[in-house]
Amino acid sequence: MGKRIYNFNAGPAALPLPVLEEIQAEFLDFKGSGMSITEVSHRSSWFDEVIEDAQLRVSRIFKLGAEYEVLFIQGGASLQFSMVPMNLLADDQIGDYVNTGAWSAKAIKEAQILGKQVRVVASSEDRNFTYIPRDIGLNEDAAYLHITSNNTIRGTQWKNFPSSGSIPLVSDMSSDIMGRTLDIAPFGVIYAGAQKNLGPSGVTLVIIRRDMLERVPEDLPTMLKYTTFAAKNSMFNTPPCFAIYVFQLVMKWLEETIGGLAKMEKLNQEKADLIYRYLDESDFYRGTTEKQDRSIMNVTFRLQDESLEGTFITDALANGLGGLKGHRSVGGCRASLYNATSLEAVQALVSFMTEFKRKYG
Amino acid sequence: MGKRIYNFNAGPAALPLPVLEEIQAEFLDFKGSGMSITEVSHRSSWFDEVIEDAQLRVSRIFKLGAEYEVLFIQGGASLQFSMVPMNLLADDQIGDYVNTGAWSAKAIKEAQILGKQVRVVASSEDRNFTYIPRDIGLNEDAAYLHITSNNTIRGTQWKNFPSSGSIPLVSDMSSDIMGRTLDIAPFGVIYAGAQKNLGPSGVTLVIIRRDMLERVPEDLPTMLKYTTFAAKNSMFNTPPCFAIYVFQLVMKWLEETIGGLAKMEKLNQEKADLIYRYLDESDFYRGTTEKQDRSIMNVTFRLQDESLEGTFITDALANGLGGLKGHRSVGGCRASLYNATSLEAVQALVSFMTEFKRKYG
Repeated sequence: MGKRIYNFNAGPAALPLPVLEEIQAEFLDFKGSGMSITEVSHRSSWFDEVIEDAQLRVSRIFKLGAEYEVLFIQGGASLQFSMVPMNLLADDQIGDYVNTGAWSAKAIKEAQILGKQVRVVASSEDRNFTYIPRDIGLNEDAAYLHITSNNTIRGTQWKNFPSSGSIPLVSDMSSDIMGRTLDIAPFGVIYAGAQKNLGPSGVTLVIIRRDMLERVPEDLPTMLKYTTFAAKNSMFNTPPCFAIYVFQLVMKWLEETIGGLAKMEKLNQEKADLIYRYLDESDFYRGTTEKQDRSIMNVTFRLQDESLEGTFITDALANGLGGLKGHRSVGGCRASLYNATSLEAVQALVSFMTEFKRKYG
Repeated sequence: MGKRIYNFNAGPAALPLPVLEEIQAEFLDFKGSGMSITEVSHRSSWFDEVIEDAQLRVSRIFKLGAEYEVLFIQGGASLQFSMVPMNLLADDQIGDYVNTGAWSAKAIKEAQILGKQVRVVASSEDRNFTYIPRDIGLNEDAAYLHITSNNTIRGTQWKNFPSSGSIPLVSDMSSDIMGRTLDIAPFGVIYAGAQKNLGPSGVTLVIIRRDMLERVPEDLPTMLKYTTFAAKNSMFNTPPCFAIYVFQLVMKWLEETIGGLAKMEKLNQEKADLIYRYLDESDFYRGTTEKQDRSIMNVTFRLQDESLEGTFITDALANGLGGLKGHRSVGGCRASLYNATSLEAVQALVSFMTEFKRKYG
């Protein structure tokens, strides 16, 4: 085996090394089945145990009551941008959306493509999505209030979710789900592509409250109805078995190795504090978002001399630190500190940044 | 490592052992990246090489001209049942379908859910889907003619595709794609869930002719438009990277180890002949489909004494032969002989059947 790097990818992203090692060890013979997990039938007891354990762990981690269903769907958050309004927003209803960046905008656009009535109740577009709006105009007639809990590209994150009263919150949590504790009660739907905090790409976690299922129209395509996935335990057709299997192992790691969500949050906060503190003390680097809305998952920053950024990213990789390039739409640098990124990795990053500053500052 | 079984699963199914071994060997460090393939960015040169090689190999294997696009979509064939009519069948057009069993029926149903005009031009329902219809009523006004090339549940397969003239053929080939040579010319769209002949579950191969893309309506959800996948090289959003990676390795195995489609077909025919010949000579077992339409991929059979079937399946597994239970909707036995199932596995199965007959016959 070659040398592993410190992986700051924005997604697909780092996975816990013990999880990868377990997959590797049992890859040719899954639990004595004589088959790889990639060869096992989804209608077998071997796979049943995987998917049931995955669902059970999600329920335990979020303390879900019986009113929530845990679903696994393909297509990423991008398909959820359409499935949410298709399933939950009748043509005579209005869906409220907060626009905090590119991913929110895509969610809004997909609702509009379906001909649904969308109301943008708040936006941070005026200052280039560098903050989270405070004043959310709440409307009692909204079918739901949609937010993006963490904005991967700009590096902002909701610290307190809007009080939406009886209006169900719907959130894309792709980039910070299970990165911190969460009170699930206000949420009607949470969805998250797995490839940041939960597992590999190829599966999307959807947590949905049962009253939301009652809204689903009968005449939708079978594979686009939340009710299909709820009724068939996410196995109306062959699910993405390998992705669900890795997801399950990551949940196990989160519960048994990390010790649950509160401990995960503490570790994530510690990682984020380390690098933000360094940025704030520095006159060589600068953070790009407003301090109170900084994401603990995606740290976006620039070099004061932006012409050095290419060298910074190349030198970092040469020193075993990968994935530090900012999103292609905004440039600059970004360190994604998802759950599987260790404190040691962040310490190595700060050391490298210190050294780089010494050399070029 | 434990003992590997002979795997006759209907899907997810056997994968080539050298492919599994390659995945295992490089699982912690993909091509010197210092990351697992599950951790590598889909916007990296590492993944670009994977997806481009996968597409190139599909083009070479099927001798595709520049008029065909090779796409990777999530959601399985079941989502294609909706995407095909959504994208290719305008509301004032008619889609022709041949009904050869449960999967055809689902394709028909999804078109109807969308409110599209469907015409069932032939069906084998009258004899319980045990054959492929010969007389296909061709209609010059059809937008396409949809068939299911191989019927996994009943074990029938189209030996000669219907001559559809200028009407494009659309085929679900999930269970026999790349199991034999193919003249692509009459096909407007071929789609196939990967989990039988192509790779693990979680990715669907769609081969589409460019003139079909011109039919795609502008106002569909982004993730449900073939044009999105064609324009963005199947990476509008994060694709199912691991599934595409395994797919690529299976294509490499098919080209470089097997030696291409003609050799694969010859081997598959040899495997199927071996077991069908044994069934035909036997008074203990019997095939369940009409001989001229027998699938070379899914061999369905019964024991003359059906009460012995449970014992047969259990004893087989105890002897290292897995996945021989028939589909839950029809019962009986089924041996799926997909590309990765070796001749040795089929020989072992026939030996076991001979022995079982000796014991119980």
